[in-house]
Amino acid sequence: MVASTHRDRPIGVFDSGVGGLTVLHELLVQLPQEDFVYLADTARFPYGERSQAELQEFSLQIAEELIRRQVKLLVVACNSATAAALPLLQERMMRTTLGVDVIGVVRPGAVHAVAATRTGRVGLLATTATVESGAYAEAIAAADPHVDLVQVPCPDLTEIIEGGFPFDQRVVDTVRRYCAPLREARVDTVVLGCTHYPLVRPMLQRMLGPGVTIISSGAPLARQVEHVLGSRSLQAGRTEGEGTYSFLCTGDPEPFRTMGTRFLQMPLGEVAQVDVAGGALAGGGPALA
Amino acid sequence: MVASTHRDRPIGVFDSGVGGLTVLHELLVQLPQEDFVYLADTARFPYGERSQAELQEFSLQIAEELIRRQVKLLVVACNSATAAALPLLQERMMRTTLGVDVIGVVRPGAVHAVAATRTGRVGLLATTATVESGAYAEAIAAADPHVDLVQVPCPDLTEIIEGGFPFDQRVVDTVRRYCAPLREARVDTVVLGCTHYPLVRPMLQRMLGPGVTIISSGAPLARQVEHVLGSRSLQAGRTEGEGTYSFLCTGDPEPFRTMGTRFLQMPLGEVAQVDVAGGALAGGGPALA
Repeated sequence: MVASTHRDRPIGVFDSGVGGLTVLHELLVQLPQEDFVYLADTARFPYGERSQAELQEFSLQIAEELIRRQVKLLVVACNSATAAALPLLQERMMRTTLGVDVIGVVRPGAVHAVAATRTGRVGLLATTATVESGAYAEAIAAADPHVDLVQVPCPDLTEIIEGGFPFDQRVVDTVRRYCAPLREARVDTVVLGCTHYPLVRPMLQRMLGPGVTIISSGAPLARQVEHVLGSRSLQAGRTEGEGTYSFLCTGDPEPFRTMGTRFLQMPLGEVAQVDVAGGALAGGGPALA
Repeated sequence: MVASTHRDRPIGVFDSGVGGLTVLHELLVQLPQEDFVYLADTARFPYGERSQAELQEFSLQIAEELIRRQVKLLVVACNSATAAALPLLQERMMRTTLGVDVIGVVRPGAVHAVAATRTGRVGLLATTATVESGAYAEAIAAADPHVDLVQVPCPDLTEIIEGGFPFDQRVVDTVRRYCAPLREARVDTVVLGCTHYPLVRPMLQRMLGPGVTIISSGAPLARQVEHVLGSRSLQAGRTEGEGTYSFLCTGDPEPFRTMGTRFLQMPLGEVAQVDVAGGALAGGGPALA
């Protein structure tokens, strides 16, 4: 049924927009031999205000599209979708004939933060929806129940980062405002609980001070992906050169391409438009039934 | 004679253009309490093709301008100027009434590379002028004479980085070409011997592979600056918030500002134009006589 061997199939990555490209960036750097296909659900961006039910439906539709493209692993590069739909996705994807693993962004960053903190005081910067989901609090408590988590919802930071290039004083002032409670709480580790925030990491590091460890999802997630591929013997067979990466987008590809290069820090190349909303999966159609 | 106490004076940083902003970036992140004044000699950019004598003259003129602005420490954030003029600058600056230390970009990166390599095979990517100066070969041999250094001159990479935003396939192809000899030589550590190159670091890391340690000048230089300030008891007295940074430019400030934000990754704010070529220092004038 599948033409290529399992290990030479691509890894699927999805997000509501460009933010997940900071995660793809780390995957491209840490796993250069792999092929990737990235799907941005820009037609329904942003996910922050969506209900749990909607996010589950969208995630299953996207998963179906990526399964159709024969991905060997699925990465949810979006904190909202991970918080709402990861267990459901994992359960459904394991039922496919291919038995595809699903990795989300929350747990790798949480585990890494618990491993990094010396004082046991960890900060979280995230969207209001992610903070309210409790996903990070839960993941950190599961790794170490004695770690104190100081959560700072940053309602406007995603929009300000997308809108600001080059960064101006408004970005600096916004970031400073969100740093204040973390500085006051004297956290020694800060998790960036939104895939947009790595773009202001230099500013954050300067305001938090050099003694604070900043953790974004990309690097620890890439390591987890490496572990999964290893344990399933699914690493790409390629031994020389780099793999390929390509992009799908549910909305207009042009703004995604333009904004995307800032987040990926590499050329984007072609972006194809795709319709995922018509998929049968969410209703229990054939692909993932 | 000086209004402020010595420790509250700014640190002076200079380069021929925007490249040194990647070094300033690291200084701003690692030493947030310090004040900085950055001088870009854009009127005489690029330094790559200049003679040793010219670079010494320019460096002394800039040093004089920065001494006039009462810097407590001088950072040469330019590989060409460091290779040509560091010992001369150090000698002259120590003779000033303030006794100012001068730190260049070559040695911190070289020492860091020697400390990082496990196989003893280190690569260098730099401009032709920097490779030909032998500055890195000398600094690495001084740190460990048994380390093999594979030097790759990259004649067009600086221009391609300045010209390319967003990065396109041409940048990827150029970077790949310069990586080839390093991959062939199986180096495990690569020094970025030009302050422009951190902008293509993600691409380099992907092409060299995750097992290769990439070292840019900024971080190890910032650490050396921290050591100097500590040993001279010159750390800024500020205990809360961040210091200031400001920019001087010998050419038109506008292109410097526009290009600069890509390199600094923070807002640049005001850039003032300044004339340094009329300084008396190079001829042995009063300031540094």
